[in-house]
Amino acid sequence: MTRADGRAFDQLRPVELTKDYIKFAEGSVLIRCGDTVVLCNASVEEKTPPHVPEGHGWVTAEYSMLPRANRERSRRDIDKLKLSGRSAEIQRLIGRSLRAAVDREALGERTITVDCDVLQGDGGTRTASVTGGFVALALACRKLMAEGKVTKNPIIHQVAAVSAGIVDDVPLLDLPYAEDSRAQVDLNCVMNEKGELIELQGTGEGRSFTLSEQQELVRLCAKGIGELLEKQRRVLQG
Amino acid sequence: MTRADGRAFDQLRPVELTKDYIKFAEGSVLIRCGDTVVLCNASVEEKTPPHVPEGHGWVTAEYSMLPRANRERSRRDIDKLKLSGRSAEIQRLIGRSLRAAVDREALGERTITVDCDVLQGDGGTRTASVTGGFVALALACRKLMAEGKVTKNPIIHQVAAVSAGIVDDVPLLDLPYAEDSRAQVDLNCVMNEKGELIELQGTGEGRSFTLSEQQELVRLCAKGIGELLEKQRRVLQG
Amino acid sequence: MTRADGRAFDQLRPVELTKDYIKFAEGSVLIRCGDTVVLCNASVEEKTPPHVPEGHGWVTAEYSMLPRANRERSRRDIDKLKLSGRSAEIQRLIGRSLRAAVDREALGERTITVDCDVLQGDGGTRTASVTGGFVALALACRKLMAEGKVTKNPIIHQVAAVSAGIVDDVPLLDLPYAEDSRAQVDLNCVMNEKGELIELQGTGEGRSFTLSEQQELVRLCAKGIGELLEKQRRVLQG
Amino acid sequence: MTRADGRAFDQLRPVELTKDYIKFAEGSVLIRCGDTVVLCNASVEEKTPPHVPEGHGWVTAEYSMLPRANRERSRRDIDKLKLSGRSAEIQRLIGRSLRAAVDREALGERTITVDCDVLQGDGGTRTASVTGGFVALALACRKLMAEGKVTKNPIIHQVAAVSAGIVDDVPLLDLPYAEDSRAQVDLNCVMNEKGELIELQGTGEGRSFTLSEQQELVRLCAKGIGELLEKQRRVLQG
Amino acid sequence: MTRADGRAFDQLRPVELTKDYIKFAEGSVLIRCGDTVVLCNASVEEKTPPHVPEGHGWVTAEYSMLPRANRERSRRDIDKLKLSGRSAEIQRLIGRSLRAAVDREALGERTITVDCDVLQGDGGTRTASVTGGFVALALACRKLMAEGKVTKNPIIHQVAAVSAGIVDDVPLLDLPYAEDSRAQVDLNCVMNEKGELIELQGTGEGRSFTLSEQQELVRLCAKGIGELLEKQRRVLQG
Amino acid sequence: MTRADGRAFDQLRPVELTKDYIKFAEGSVLIRCGDTVVLCNASVEEKTPPHVPEGHGWVTAEYSMLPRANRERSRRDIDKLKLSGRSAEIQRLIGRSLRAAVDREALGERTITVDCDVLQGDGGTRTASVTGGFVALALACRKLMAEGKVTKNPIIHQVAAVSAGIVDDVPLLDLPYAEDSRAQVDLNCVMNEKGELIELQGTGEGRSFTLSEQQELVRLCAKGIGELLEKQRRVLQG
Repeated sequence: MTRADGRAFDQLRPVELTKDYIKFAEGSVLIRCGDTVVLCNASVEEKTPPHVPEGHGWVTAEYSMLPRANRERSRRDIDKLKLSGRSAEIQRLIGRSLRAAVDREALGERTITVDCDVLQGDGGTRTASVTGGFVALALACRKLMAEGKVTKNPIIHQVAAVSAGIVDDVPLLDLPYAEDSRAQVDLNCVMNEKGELIELQGTGEGRSFTLSEQQELVRLCAKGIGELLEKQRRVLQG
Repeated sequence: MTRADGRAFDQLRPVELTKDYIKFAEGSVLIRCGDTVVLCNASVEEKTPPHVPEGHGWVTAEYSMLPRANRERSRRDIDKLKLSGRSAEIQRLIGRSLRAAVDREALGERTITVDCDVLQGDGGTRTASVTGGFVALALACRKLMAEGKVTKNPIIHQVAAVSAGIVDDVPLLDLPYAEDSRAQVDLNCVMNEKGELIELQGTGEGRSFTLSEQQELVRLCAKGIGELLEKQRRVLQG
Repeated sequence: MTRADGRAFDQLRPVELTKDYIKFAEGSVLIRCGDTVVLCNASVEEKTPPHVPEGHGWVTAEYSMLPRANRERSRRDIDKLKLSGRSAEIQRLIGRSLRAAVDREALGERTITVDCDVLQGDGGTRTASVTGGFVALALACRKLMAEGKVTKNPIIHQVAAVSAGIVDDVPLLDLPYAEDSRAQVDLNCVMNEKGELIELQGTGEGRSFTLSEQQELVRLCAKGIGELLEKQRRVLQG
Repeated sequence: MTRADGRAFDQLRPVELTKDYIKFAEGSVLIRCGDTVVLCNASVEEKTPPHVPEGHGWVTAEYSMLPRANRERSRRDIDKLKLSGRSAEIQRLIGRSLRAAVDREALGERTITVDCDVLQGDGGTRTASVTGGFVALALACRKLMAEGKVTKNPIIHQVAAVSAGIVDDVPLLDLPYAEDSRAQVDLNCVMNEKGELIELQGTGEGRSFTLSEQQELVRLCAKGIGELLEKQRRVLQG
Repeated sequence: MTRADGRAFDQLRPVELTKDYIKFAEGSVLIRCGDTVVLCNASVEEKTPPHVPEGHGWVTAEYSMLPRANRERSRRDIDKLKLSGRSAEIQRLIGRSLRAAVDREALGERTITVDCDVLQGDGGTRTASVTGGFVALALACRKLMAEGKVTKNPIIHQVAAVSAGIVDDVPLLDLPYAEDSRAQVDLNCVMNEKGELIELQGTGEGRSFTLSEQQELVRLCAKGIGELLEKQRRVLQG
Repeated sequence: MTRADGRAFDQLRPVELTKDYIKFAEGSVLIRCGDTVVLCNASVEEKTPPHVPEGHGWVTAEYSMLPRANRERSRRDIDKLKLSGRSAEIQRLIGRSLRAAVDREALGERTITVDCDVLQGDGGTRTASVTGGFVALALACRKLMAEGKVTKNPIIHQVAAVSAGIVDDVPLLDLPYAEDSRAQVDLNCVMNEKGELIELQGTGEGRSFTLSEQQELVRLCAKGIGELLEKQRRVLQG
């Protein structure tokens, strides 16, 4: 089997992380994974939601697609007066993933909101949001350090994500829309710098899958995430 | 480590499936898993949403908690004018799981909506909804058969679900709220009668987890799901 | 004229009140009146809405039908983003009725919310909600007494409700859906232990009615309410 | 006991019905009952809602208060994104009352919507809406006759409404806000030209009431409604 | 060219301002401009929104059309759960215009909300709202003076508004609906007592317009506004 | 007076138009005016809204700011369940402006929606949206031509926009946020290739303004728009 874009089965699409894309946000990154483009902006507010214990901070995420991010224009959420169920599901995943990167006590009583707005979607928008969102979050934390608002870097783990899937019974890494839309099985992994899992979501859309297929997909993701973590480090050092 | 309710680490809570709990629904089941109680009602409508191809049917789910299903009363969604993000996430999971049980062409151009309303919640409400929801769905399909509306049973797989988690570094099956609220890792599995995966969602809420820990949790779930599938068969035959 | 279920014109459907149906609520009752089933849960919160005078408490109610409580599935309020006008009307009636049972000063600065969720509806859901809701309210007040939060029982009246209607020009007590849907006149009464009126709502859906017909319907209701009050007392003592 | 405005216990406030207040509506009436002012506009549309049987028409009502109709400004429904529960309850009452005036087959497959917008509220806005709304409805039907759209007048009954209440244990007709806000019992009647009841709603806000008190209040209403029906006839003939 | 109602090209429709139309509002005016009728009520609240600096007051406006203000009935905003975009645009214009009339420090820490509800619309409803709204605002400020709540009149400018348009290439003042609906260019002016501009909105709906045409329309508006300011003064003195 | 960025009083900020920024939209442009960045995407749909006459097309616009486009993060519309009044006002302006560019009969029975999403806002976002939106619209029409869906180019005028304002009594062209936030008068012009006006909106936020000041501001805008039209032509030819 040959992939339409000529990639090997375990090869990522070209990834590009542009730092400080927007000048007002405390952390801002434009991430491109192939034709998927997501703007990730981290905003710091000096207060926390009611459910957060005293002395702790909070990290949360919002996810949205611009109306024409896709092949067909979709109506805005505000036009339908409903957050799409898909967006609700995805932004909860991003929020959980990014919280795993942070020491909430070191963050102090403030909230960092990471807005992930998809400018162009070609598969893998949720995992690109996690990968880009982590860099935006890290930049915002660096700014808190530089301003003396926190004494210890709240970032305690590095976090990145990618998807893998089974297409025509072949496991493939990092599916674009054309592959994703006919995948039999689809799996997203969020991992940290130790190669351990933070989040794992697998769906048998076309057929059920065995435990050993699931393992194979996680291994593919682990390989891709290793490369993404390296790219994050380079842009944060650059 | 001893569990508060005296169960073995790989033991399910007592499960009870009451068929035909509500008399108007085409399929109705009240499922109790320990202190978790969910009413699952399957309703048949003779039309499909616009995105479904001609000649095919559709299966979807809605999930909601009654305001006082929990230790604290929560405001109704309609009072806040927003479907809770958690409910949105869960009902998408249930819908995908139940669709995996059905041959949509055999179902014909109709929609089965499975409403899962949590009367009392003590952990595992989403997996109880899948397990109970499958039985409601199967009863509704049986009714379609009996009425001659379908000639072939649309049910092609049996589907059930359970959760497992790591508490104090010990993997445990089927967490009640008291365990779930302090779990370090939480994983939900949906499987079919072949022991293959349909859906898999793992979250490292307290710490990251290794691939081998993840496997152990899936194995625990597989054991529990085997027992749940047996209970489903018994109630459907009864 | 013979009634479909063989009852006398002034006979109630079988009534069953199950105490402590849900374990988290301060007061919980499942009421069955024939095929109508309503779960009534009373929740105590230690604050009052802004319009309540200092030193007083508040009692309010919310009413909702599960989507498949009826012969046809109905869409959830949150799906339509609107509380149904019928539900709004009914929950205001239940709230006013239950407030008449309570000494708000004795209750102190707290709110009791009685959630009435119809699991199955076969006529008379609003009056069943009042009758069952009163028991849930009384149980919650008893709990406040037991915990020493109030020194005097806030319950000063017992309250129950039933409907009567004119079908084929014959006055009948406690209409199920089959009778209700073709009733010419429909009347709901809420009364207390003295046989006095708290709420009275009569509607000439099919034709106008005379003052003497109205009286006859109130007398029928008074008979039925007497029996319901007795059942409430028995379950509260049991 | 003397009433603040010097009226006898069974005397209506001055009533004024101004026909054709708005020139675009098919039927338009401004009704003043003392300081209560309601604009009632009837609009005809050549279609019916889905639940109406073929060949029949429909009559419905909407009720709203302008933000400064009362002593305090209230926020608009659209600002809160919720129809007030009180408005929902009231517009259902008005709709049922006006439907009782009409032969829906004679009306044909069209809908008449009667909008009742309270410009100034001083008690009795719902009953003023019924009384004024009937005249707007009758004018709209007359217009349908004049245009030859219906051959038989759809109006088969005349309908009017008023309230009565018990204040300081004295039954009084037609309560303004100052009396209504301290009434112990409050009762609204809708009657037709035969003096028969269409709708009856009684509430013991301050205390329970006996069947004989209830009768006395209905008798007071019957007297007032007789006078309102006469005023309606005069303005329709004028 | 002759206008349908016989007016000269630079002649206003008859204007009538009725003071104290509603008795509860701090300032109330019913304004009629030909067949356009708007009820303008000013309400004072002793607090300000968060964005207002300490020691300053705020003036804001809300604008709405009754459902049957126009030739066709339109659905209420609350029925659609959306404030119409047109209403949003207009109420922002009215708010900005009225704020220009007021010294916000002299007003003190309070908000005046001017509700403009269109009872009948025949063109020029937004400008009638500004002209009538100013009088309601001035009456409310006068009341604050009389009650000693402010020591200096917060009104520092007089503000009125009118529209002009180009119909069949002829500039005309104060367009009713029949002219407005076929105008090629439409321009609204808000001016003060010095004949200076506060707000200016011109739209080439049918064709573009030159700077000199625009000037001609502003001159027409200036003439009309001069007459409206005179009418405002007379009603405020009367 | 010297401007903070060293520009002459009648000088535009640097403008950059990037064609085909998004690959799915029929027309896509990223416009930068100084630090203001707006993504304008034109989408074609083969149907029109109900109010559009047969045989005609429609052009409409939507405008939104990303949450962190500004110095402070703002909540998303969907979070507040309300389209911001400012966005509603602006998108109506953009829609009217772009419709003036098009022959709706030549467009045929289709709708072009131009989405203007502000990625970064530093003043002038609404005029940048018109200027960039026109190019996106023209690209979409060119695509319709290329595909043979229309035979005649629906674009009949070229449209661009800019703002001017009075700061410290000095008229200045193209205000960034720092100037805009302390402008006494603010005026937006939309013009076509003939230098004629399409839309004109002037606001005296800090003080009223004379007719001759207004003229001076329009002349400044005319100069700037001339340069913007030239840039549009170059990018459309490039």
